[in-house]
Amino acid sequence: MIMQFDLKGTDSQSKARAGTITTDHGVIETPIFMPVGTVASVKGVHQRELKNDINPDIILGNTYHLYLRPQTGILEQAGGLHKFMNWDRNILTDSGGYQVYSLSANRKIKEEGVKFKSHIDGSYHVFTPENVMEIQRSIGADIIMAFDECTPYPCDYNYAKRSMHMTHRWLDRCINHLEKTPLKYGYNQAFFPIVQGSTYKDLRIQSAEYIANAGAMGNAIGGLSVGEPAEEMYAMTEVVCGVLPEDKPRYLMGVGTPINILENIALGIDMFDCVMPTRNARNGMLFTAHGTMNIKNQKWKDDFSPLDEMGMTFVDTDYSKAYLRHLFSVNELLAMQIATIHNLGFYLWLVREARKHILAGDFSIWKNKMVNQMNKRL
Amino acid sequence: MIMQFDLKGTDSQSKARAGTITTDHGVIETPIFMPVGTVASVKGVHQRELKNDINPDIILGNTYHLYLRPQTGILEQAGGLHKFMNWDRNILTDSGGYQVYSLSANRKIKEEGVKFKSHIDGSYHVFTPENVMEIQRSIGADIIMAFDECTPYPCDYNYAKRSMHMTHRWLDRCINHLEKTPLKYGYNQAFFPIVQGSTYKDLRIQSAEYIANAGAMGNAIGGLSVGEPAEEMYAMTEVVCGVLPEDKPRYLMGVGTPINILENIALGIDMFDCVMPTRNARNGMLFTAHGTMNIKNQKWKDDFSPLDEMGMTFVDTDYSKAYLRHLFSVNELLAMQIATIHNLGFYLWLVREARKHILAGDFSIWKNKMVNQMNKRL
Ligand SMILES: [Zn+2]
Ligand SMILES: [Zn+2]
Repeated sequence: MIMQFDLKGTDSQSKARAGTITTDHGVIETPIFMPVGTVASVKGVHQRELKNDINPDIILGNTYHLYLRPQTGILEQAGGLHKFMNWDRNILTDSGGYQVYSLSANRKIKEEGVKFKSHIDGSYHVFTPENVMEIQRSIGADIIMAFDECTPYPCDYNYAKRSMHMTHRWLDRCINHLEKTPLKYGYNQAFFPIVQGSTYKDLRIQSAEYIANAGAMGNAIGGLSVGEPAEEMYAMTEVVCGVLPEDKPRYLMGVGTPINILENIALGIDMFDCVMPTRNARNGMLFTAHGTMNIKNQKWKDDFSPLDEMGMTFVDTDYSKAYLRHLFSVNELLAMQIATIHNLGFYLWLVREARKHILAGDFSIWKNKMVNQMNKRL
Repeated sequence: MIMQFDLKGTDSQSKARAGTITTDHGVIETPIFMPVGTVASVKGVHQRELKNDINPDIILGNTYHLYLRPQTGILEQAGGLHKFMNWDRNILTDSGGYQVYSLSANRKIKEEGVKFKSHIDGSYHVFTPENVMEIQRSIGADIIMAFDECTPYPCDYNYAKRSMHMTHRWLDRCINHLEKTPLKYGYNQAFFPIVQGSTYKDLRIQSAEYIANAGAMGNAIGGLSVGEPAEEMYAMTEVVCGVLPEDKPRYLMGVGTPINILENIALGIDMFDCVMPTRNARNGMLFTAHGTMNIKNQKWKDDFSPLDEMGMTFVDTDYSKAYLRHLFSVNELLAMQIATIHNLGFYLWLVREARKHILAGDFSIWKNKMVNQMNKRL
């Protein structure tokens, strides 16, 4: 089937929306947070835990990492990423644009594409709009992304403008090539283009218009959450959401903290992904409805109360704060496993709760209360 | 309640026995393999997975590690190790004797006890038969072990003899001190003494007689699986089991491979523990009913069949060989988690299967078939 987006409700006091995205791999209730499964695994989480305990309708895979290992040949033999990793719900792959941008010294960006050095063995590779479409066909995600250049922050106006136009030309090449590249498996793939333009309003508007014009099934905003102040991020989201069509899902790439997510939902964003809940978990940082906590802190040493009284996932009630602190202090694997499930469980709870409040009509009141209470260190 | 051991069946063609050990934390069906939870966690395994998927009646904790971190004060405040780690079945703690022996250059053994240097911060500590009993009271395991000296292999006869007698004197001190040390929580603790004597038959017999004489609830054999050939280990087990009482459980410490376990069950052993299934799992070595496999090997790269067709735990059917190989090659946490659950699931399957065959009367035939088919590299 062709991906379908249905708006189920909008907030009267903000731009927040609740919807459903339907694909061959099922329904995604929006707003949604997509856990990052970089290289065919959400780090530290079994697939059945991801499905039953964290319960996202969609996860994200990274084209750059999957291209290097296990490589597309293996994924094709497996029948695509879903089968390879045993995940039968939706998957979105990024285009690799952000990852090669992050290689900084080890990549060279030209009109043709990006030449980069593998972070694993130093071998050279080239990503072009064309081969990135082919790679994403082989991976077989339900939603695939355009190949773009992600500009750094801060970014010189002229560089941002030139880069944006190249991203637009790359978009046209992606679309042209995708039409000529057949689907590999028995289901469809929806293609999302990406708005760039750094932190410049005029560029963001121009780019959003170009991207909207492509008439894709959904649209993404890239180049944010790269170091700019939250206020600049929100300003760009607001401007871009004003241009992007209302009847298509909007995906803000790489964002962010729980507060960032709520604020961007209020501005009209439907989809998010970020390594923060998983990466910070592995460093002992927990997100909760009442603020963030560093579980490695000495203060939790003899706090035998449940990890999180709200009990969003089994780890919150199976384990105490003192126990998790101990596991981090002795460097046990289980420490990272517990913290990861907690954080992802919390992020998914947060977006589901946001959805409920949008549909109930009291999103803005709830959002302001949550932003206030999450803005604390426990 | 006082620990109780009931023999439910014996094999007619070997010394294998099936029994039940009953304590305040439930029934342990023997023969049993105890997963090692060194520092209040079986590495890479959630408590609910340990309980529901691996399903051992008892696990092991290490006194040395728990004494250093989280330290006995925290365990006492938590109400003991069971509550601290949320494990409501049986726990056995070793005495720390083996761990301090392993510190080699960083410990000094005297009649009074062992002075050792912490592997964490280099601080000095002393273990004596007396304080090790107190520490094990604070940890609160259901079965606690005597403080002994574990001799290396090979071991000079005179050293082995002197050491064995010191272990015997330490045993008397343990028993005396334990009588004066009250229980800390609402349940009983059974005390097991340890037979030493290196690989010398006469010393092993002498030690087994001394230990049997103590009239403890169960008896252990230490100082094996320290580098000696399997045949020497089996010879010592046989000699010692001939002396130890039949109506008490027999625990062979630190053993071993699946084959070692079956051979020692045939010689009359009821309880085992070993880091092998968990440690080797983290290095990509899997034990199966048809032999061992190095899952990191290139040959599994495109083998999309289930990890183990026998499907003893969910990981065996949820994941393929190619997927697990990939996870090891990209160094994902989930690789160690999957391999650990597989190996522990297999070890527990093996001892449960052994029990069934002892009760069914065909243990020896089954054991010989299994030893033969497990003795392969896949
Ligand atoms: Zn343009
Ligand atoms: Zn003696």
